[in-house]
Amino acid sequence: MIKIPRGTATHLPEGASLRRYTQEVILSTFFDWGYKEVVTPVFEYLDVLSAGLTSGLLEKSYKFIDRESGKIMLLRPDITPQVARMVAGILSIEPKPLRLCYYGNIFRYEEAHAGREQEIFQVGCELAGSPSPEADAEIIALASETLKKIRIEDFKIVIGQVNYLYGIISFIKDAVDQPLSQENEYALKEAFTKKDSGELEILLNKIGVATDSKKNILKLPELFGGEEILDKAVKISANKVSYEAIMNLQEIYSTLCLYGLKDNIIFDLCDIREIDYYTGIFFEIFSPGIPFPIGRGGRYDNLIGRFGYDCPSTGFAIDIESIITVREKQGEREHINDKPAYLISGGEKEKKEIIQLARDLRDKGYRSILDTGLKDLHSITDYAKNNNINKIILIDANNSKQLSIIDVDTMKKTSINKDKLIS
Amino acid sequence: MIKIPRGTATHLPEGASLRRYTQEVILSTFFDWGYKEVVTPVFEYLDVLSAGLTSGLLEKSYKFIDRESGKIMLLRPDITPQVARMVAGILSIEPKPLRLCYYGNIFRYEEAHAGREQEIFQVGCELAGSPSPEADAEIIALASETLKKIRIEDFKIVIGQVNYLYGIISFIKDAVDQPLSQENEYALKEAFTKKDSGELEILLNKIGVATDSKKNILKLPELFGGEEILDKAVKISANKVSYEAIMNLQEIYSTLCLYGLKDNIIFDLCDIREIDYYTGIFFEIFSPGIPFPIGRGGRYDNLIGRFGYDCPSTGFAIDIESIITVREKQGEREHINDKPAYLISGGEKEKKEIIQLARDLRDKGYRSILDTGLKDLHSITDYAKNNNINKIILIDANNSKQLSIIDVDTMKKTSINKDKLIS
Repeated sequence: MIKIPRGTATHLPEGASLRRYTQEVILSTFFDWGYKEVVTPVFEYLDVLSAGLTSGLLEKSYKFIDRESGKIMLLRPDITPQVARMVAGILSIEPKPLRLCYYGNIFRYEEAHAGREQEIFQVGCELAGSPSPEADAEIIALASETLKKIRIEDFKIVIGQVNYLYGIISFIKDAVDQPLSQENEYALKEAFTKKDSGELEILLNKIGVATDSKKNILKLPELFGGEEILDKAVKISANKVSYEAIMNLQEIYSTLCLYGLKDNIIFDLCDIREIDYYTGIFFEIFSPGIPFPIGRGGRYDNLIGRFGYDCPSTGFAIDIESIITVREKQGEREHINDKPAYLISGGEKEKKEIIQLARDLRDKGYRSILDTGLKDLHSITDYAKNNNINKIILIDANNSKQLSIIDVDTMKKTSINKDKLIS
Repeated sequence: MIKIPRGTATHLPEGASLRRYTQEVILSTFFDWGYKEVVTPVFEYLDVLSAGLTSGLLEKSYKFIDRESGKIMLLRPDITPQVARMVAGILSIEPKPLRLCYYGNIFRYEEAHAGREQEIFQVGCELAGSPSPEADAEIIALASETLKKIRIEDFKIVIGQVNYLYGIISFIKDAVDQPLSQENEYALKEAFTKKDSGELEILLNKIGVATDSKKNILKLPELFGGEEILDKAVKISANKVSYEAIMNLQEIYSTLCLYGLKDNIIFDLCDIREIDYYTGIFFEIFSPGIPFPIGRGGRYDNLIGRFGYDCPSTGFAIDIESIITVREKQGEREHINDKPAYLISGGEKEKKEIIQLARDLRDKGYRSILDTGLKDLHSITDYAKNNNINKIILIDANNSKQLSIIDVDTMKKTSINKDKLIS
């Protein structure tokens, strides 16, 4: 019998503790950079939020009819549009830029065979109100610093710029006699994104692009790699739009080098993100051996405007599950519950002593657990072993100053003076 | 235009920061007592979860049809039944007791005029696998300690025991000649819960309870108060079930006194919680001036069994919004973002210095924010004032060892050696 819906979040203590640790480290990094948390609703009116969602995401959304209003609601499939709605509304009077962050779950119908979760926890940051390349660099640097804080050091950031290919396509339009059909434009974008040179050549011939230009454009699928790519791209860039896209990348890149991220960056200029809301750079973060990005982001200068208030913005999101996968591969096991712990036991006469000692030990920074419900040493030991408890303390009312301590690993029993333990 | 559904969670930075602080203090208290977090899905199959929900809660639940399975899903209206399902399933093989806790949002349709939120954040603890009164005392003590940790010292815990009234009703059944009709039984329970002596007398006459017994039973609405109530209740208690309920309360109470909670406790024995899943004690926590309970809990020995694994359990939940309301009334303003902060500014030439200094200050435990997107001192000052930033640092590449610092409150500018600042 299947008891819970496929792909929803269910975490037992061990997994929840890893996730709580990850959440706290990530958010404290965001806070240290001046980002402030906001909380958005789990469901919203479809007709409001859809202004910020692509048709693909709308299709994947969980929808239901609100009993009260009769309107269609959707479980949020993405948090950035909700933050955009907030910036365009109640936060529009605040001085810019706004540094905002969030932690929350999103919901998407995913095909069973895709192996993706349907309820996904994400954290993210948005830097709203600055069109500057420095803002983009800050966002990428913060995403990187966040990974480093949770000890993910080995990652690559693949950066693109939507305007580079837009410039190329606009050049193609200008270079041919006939207007470019929608069908051909779509096929071109697809061939670029797939880096399919064969298909690209067929298309360029079909469209009637002159040999010289064609030769240049066919080099685009090679524009994937380190900073040397930018020089090549400038040479190929056929008009002002493409050229400025590279200048923008150049400026962001030089700032990222100041952040010490030179070796983490890869450029990919033959990719276009029409399905997303990006209007400038966009990036994905990869960790070796993980086949999907662990984080992604970019500049989205039109999204907030769709909610009625023009405001350039840039941001990123990180999937908590991907982070957990990487950390597990690396053997990282820090979690939130790793404070040393005592289990304190005694009889009815010792109850008061037990309660007081537990309090004293907590005040000293230990976890401490009472023997509630456990009456024999065997079950107490089982419980301790199963709950990361290092020591068992036995109290005897006849000699309450002197405690017996059992080390759970070795099961060796020693004696210690109570005042010494809690001083 | 109403942009978001009524009563859903939307928190701006200030409110979110208060809530994050509250969440962290509460959870770290739970962890220190040996409770471990679990995470449950936002939606579940109705036919599975309904085993643990009352018809009232089912009625209030948000429901939708799952596109994939065609089954009815519901947004969780309560987290305890989800934890119960987990304990009955995957956690059933673990040594008992299990100490589990959670933080999450629940969803309920509420009447507009009731002024209640429809998306509510709750935290809670469950101690599963122990039938002992000590377990109930631990749960009440932990709920109390949690409140104290977030500086709510002034609260009362109103404790009842479902079996006390069950015993009285069973006595009434035995004492009269005719079987008690369902209708009369329901009316009796309602009269008890409303402490309506007039209605109670009419009902007891109608049912035909003898004068002596009636006199005793009519004293029940007075059973509200301190420990002296327990003695009175014993005298009234007409059979074993009622008597044992008081003995159970007595034992829990004496343990709570060891926890130092004597003055926080009020008994209410004329209340019955048929609408809930409680099977023993149940309690509500009140703070002066707040008309609704800020937390509630009790023993529910049958709930886990409804998911296929018999296991006694006791637990509590606290509403985050109620906590925030009480803390605001008390003028408590600690939040998560109160680390001192620097905003660092300079020109293009100083970029590298700015980035390095920001990093150094964060390593020293400060928040530090770059001047990204802000180019004049006026807007930098505005930003600082609006973002709890205490100091503005101006870097000059020509003299990068000596920094200018502006105190945002006084706008006084002083000079400081950089190495001194970060040493």
